[in-house]
Amino acid sequence: MVEDEIMRNVRSEDPLLTEIATYVIGSGGKRMRPGIALLSFRAVGGTDLKKIITVATAFELIHSATLVHDDINDGAETRRGNTAVYRKYGTQRALITGDFLFVKGFRLGGMIQSEEIVEMVADSCSRMAESEILQTRTENDASIPLETYIRIITGKTAKPIEASAQVGAYIGNGSAEQIAGMGTFGLNIGLAFQIVDDILDIGGNEGDLGKGRGMDVLDGKANLPLMIAMQDHYPKSARLREIYSKKDKTLEEVDEALELVLDTDAMDVAMGHAEDLRLKALKGLDVLQETEFKDALRALADTVLARDR
Amino acid sequence: MVEDEIMRNVRSEDPLLTEIATYVIGSGGKRMRPGIALLSFRAVGGTDLKKIITVATAFELIHSATLVHDDINDGAETRRGNTAVYRKYGTQRALITGDFLFVKGFRLGGMIQSEEIVEMVADSCSRMAESEILQTRTENDASIPLETYIRIITGKTAKPIEASAQVGAYIGNGSAEQIAGMGTFGLNIGLAFQIVDDILDIGGNEGDLGKGRGMDVLDGKANLPLMIAMQDHYPKSARLREIYSKKDKTLEEVDEALELVLDTDAMDVAMGHAEDLRLKALKGLDVLQETEFKDALRALADTVLARDR
Repeated sequence: MVEDEIMRNVRSEDPLLTEIATYVIGSGGKRMRPGIALLSFRAVGGTDLKKIITVATAFELIHSATLVHDDINDGAETRRGNTAVYRKYGTQRALITGDFLFVKGFRLGGMIQSEEIVEMVADSCSRMAESEILQTRTENDASIPLETYIRIITGKTAKPIEASAQVGAYIGNGSAEQIAGMGTFGLNIGLAFQIVDDILDIGGNEGDLGKGRGMDVLDGKANLPLMIAMQDHYPKSARLREIYSKKDKTLEEVDEALELVLDTDAMDVAMGHAEDLRLKALKGLDVLQETEFKDALRALADTVLARDR
Repeated sequence: MVEDEIMRNVRSEDPLLTEIATYVIGSGGKRMRPGIALLSFRAVGGTDLKKIITVATAFELIHSATLVHDDINDGAETRRGNTAVYRKYGTQRALITGDFLFVKGFRLGGMIQSEEIVEMVADSCSRMAESEILQTRTENDASIPLETYIRIITGKTAKPIEASAQVGAYIGNGSAEQIAGMGTFGLNIGLAFQIVDDILDIGGNEGDLGKGRGMDVLDGKANLPLMIAMQDHYPKSARLREIYSKKDKTLEEVDEALELVLDTDAMDVAMGHAEDLRLKALKGLDVLQETEFKDALRALADTVLARDR
């Protein structure tokens, strides 16, 4: 039903805009935000499907909008194995299509007529923008504190997932405790998700990823295994910091940096952090009764850590 | 009060984002959308100030977001006499700030908890995106039909102004007839506004405009006086079409095109259309009682035609 609602919402009066928006939406996202919203809703005993499907769709449309704009900003070549939208249709049209998807998402979010929901959705989006600006300020900065990294990934990835989980429980008429618990789940699984993303960027399989490795190194973006391996006590950290700090890196330098990270235990240390966050996320589920939906949320948490794309 | 509300809404957790958003908002816009929304509200006897100020602010924030993105897409150097945001802060940060302003605008629009208002605001934004995509498809096309031009400017400029006027009357508890009349006013004054924009792009004073002339010619964007002067029956129209159709135009060619347009009566013909639209807009005001607010709307319509920036 969410898929149908998504497809209904990307249709426009302009055939080209519909084509581009459909390309964005149809290129195989994980639908994690709607998935978590729906499971959270069900897990607290929610039954009013119409509202939750509307909001789940809103989350996915807004997420898709940010991906289109992110790819422009990152100069990404591919996304989910397909040519990045702005590469296929040009930057102008990609930018406009992103705005269009934003509008469609916010329209649905506003249709619910709940100040709380609008606030939760909008707040997560503001936080996203703040984190992205913060990220631009720390590009190629080899001395970025871990605290700043956490702030960036909290806003960029964890907050929207937290909001999906909270809104799901809220619409499902969960108790204040349940809404908070689902927030804990969403926030921590979101942080874990981003750390696994970082890990895959360093050591993933490009075929599985549907995009090249080493993008964070190339773009000088904070990435947890990379940050760990840049710490002083690693013997080759100075060379790694040297490469990372360069504004223009050659592909050879990027490959060298990836090897330097992989030669340390940074990937394992990062995965350890992701695992800790998964456990914290699971603690959030204590507010739920045992149901198949709670099981599904546990399984989703496992998948976030075990994924290879 | 709208200014205060705007300033409150561009503040963020990130100081740089606040700075950029404040730069956008502070660089002297006309505030036409909030102005029309407020006057329309008052003209139908509206008294609940809180709601109208929220929505008027939403319109301005969304409008500002689109300007920031438009400047990226158009490669504009300046806006309102100031350096274009993306030139000053870089494309990445401008794109993110535009998204941030969108979010803040839609957040306010959603706070009203009215399906009708969300729909009117969102619909005008979707139409904007559709028109902008249509515009990219007709770039440098010297044979673009007048009908297509009207579709483009309707979506790009007139629809958001129509929505401002309608929403103002709606929040002011205007009758269905009054809401429709204000829509007529907004739509037609919006079309007139864009035509005057086109006229100023061809023959305005760069000092007054705060930006260069001939941007539409350079970017190959539909512009009414230009389209009129490209019609077959004008002796030098073939040369004008030749220049306009070029993907890359020299500044000399742009200047030559401006002169070719100015040598015809196209500016007067275009202004005649704007004047017709102003009269149509005033007809929309027949639904209003005589008040100082109706007078102000009439004066606003005059200003739209008489403006030099």
